[in-house]
Amino acid sequence: MEKHKPLILISNDDGYSAKGINELVKTLKGLGEIIVMAPDGPRSGASGAITSESPVRYFKVREEEDLTIYKCTGTPVDCVKLAMFELLPRCPDLVVGGINHGDNSAVNVHYSGTMGVVIEGCLKGVPAIGFSLCDHEADADFNPMLPYVRKITEAVMAKGLPKGTCLNVNVPKTDVLKGVRICRQTDASWGNEWYRGQHPKGGAYFWLTGKFTNNEPEAEETDRWALEHDYVAITPIQIDMTAYALVDELKSWNLNV
Amino acid sequence: MEKHKPLILISNDDGYSAKGINELVKTLKGLGEIIVMAPDGPRSGASGAITSESPVRYFKVREEEDLTIYKCTGTPVDCVKLAMFELLPRCPDLVVGGINHGDNSAVNVHYSGTMGVVIEGCLKGVPAIGFSLCDHEADADFNPMLPYVRKITEAVMAKGLPKGTCLNVNVPKTDVLKGVRICRQTDASWGNEWYRGQHPKGGAYFWLTGKFTNNEPEAEETDRWALEHDYVAITPIQIDMTAYALVDELKSWNLNV
Repeated sequence: MEKHKPLILISNDDGYSAKGINELVKTLKGLGEIIVMAPDGPRSGASGAITSESPVRYFKVREEEDLTIYKCTGTPVDCVKLAMFELLPRCPDLVVGGINHGDNSAVNVHYSGTMGVVIEGCLKGVPAIGFSLCDHEADADFNPMLPYVRKITEAVMAKGLPKGTCLNVNVPKTDVLKGVRICRQTDASWGNEWYRGQHPKGGAYFWLTGKFTNNEPEAEETDRWALEHDYVAITPIQIDMTAYALVDELKSWNLNV
Repeated sequence: MEKHKPLILISNDDGYSAKGINELVKTLKGLGEIIVMAPDGPRSGASGAITSESPVRYFKVREEEDLTIYKCTGTPVDCVKLAMFELLPRCPDLVVGGINHGDNSAVNVHYSGTMGVVIEGCLKGVPAIGFSLCDHEADADFNPMLPYVRKITEAVMAKGLPKGTCLNVNVPKTDVLKGVRICRQTDASWGNEWYRGQHPKGGAYFWLTGKFTNNEPEAEETDRWALEHDYVAITPIQIDMTAYALVDELKSWNLNV
């Protein structure tokens, strides 16, 4: 019986031509057969969005040994769904999102298209990892993090991840990484979120921006603490969002009508 | 000192003109001052998406006593963020999403724009509830669920919700609701997710569709079980997605390079 090479599906939210996803592909080459299905342009902040109001298309960009790259008109989650439905010869062994240009730690996990990719992989029962660099620049320097990307990926391929869990890996912008910390999601908040402009034909328009506030900067077990102290932050994420601690309390509320 | 009426912010992902959001507004009238800021058209499946690549605008639709309705060009989450930044005289006492035309139970919480609204309210520290009816029809009959909508909303306004938690309320399509069950998120999966069409100029296009499978149909504590047995399913949701059970395991992996 032929033994397959591991099959690795990669996507992101910055688009197939972003530097981050191409650095990721280079870093993972040799670990298996890589299929990239990524958005055809930027989809930052796409979260777990799916395209319900229009059809989606995809196109092959290029192909070389053990690597095929496709671009897709849909969201990051559409990319994962469509690749698994249409392109992959079997269920992939790994789904990887990134490398994102920008921080996906703390509450940003809820807005991140990169983590949308990862959560979708996890929902499909596939081990999944998201990598993000805390640097929004198009030409950000990914080099310092690449050995960690390779090592974390190899570890997940060797050991797997428990059902319903995936990894959110964020890396600070620094040349001197101090190592890895396993973290929890930081309690943080966004404020002052809009820039107001004046439309030339009247009325205002608004660009999303905002100020990030860490609500627990002293908590050493959080991902933001790790990032602020030059560590690679690995936050395990689960797709079961149930607030179990609240179940019994709500049962006492007597909400029948 | 003047005592303010409670301030209630409502949004959805079906758009400001959908039947569901208008039924919600009617049902909550009298509980406070209601501000609706909802998308100007359908945004089903928008999840927690935010608009990062274009500006967002909003427009007043109509105004009556204790009710003002605005429409917004952005996502459901944009609606919450922009209303809180731009429209509301103070932090709202409650954020409500819905009533969604369609099921947001189980893993659907990850794709739902209605739950995007609710999670955004929760991220802002405001008690938040999402209501969904398991009926996609534009003229769905919301009447059987409305007494529950009112009672659950009144309870949350009276008691609050613990920081970092919110409610995902789903209601089955039936005339005879048996009461309320407090649930956990069901383990479920979507398969066969795309309908393939042939583009007149060549190539394929794909519409997202799919078959929902409940992976634990016998589990009586799940939201899908409740729905399949004609109960209103209330699933408490938390915004901390950390997989705590995995933290110690990962610490043993030695991922430093």
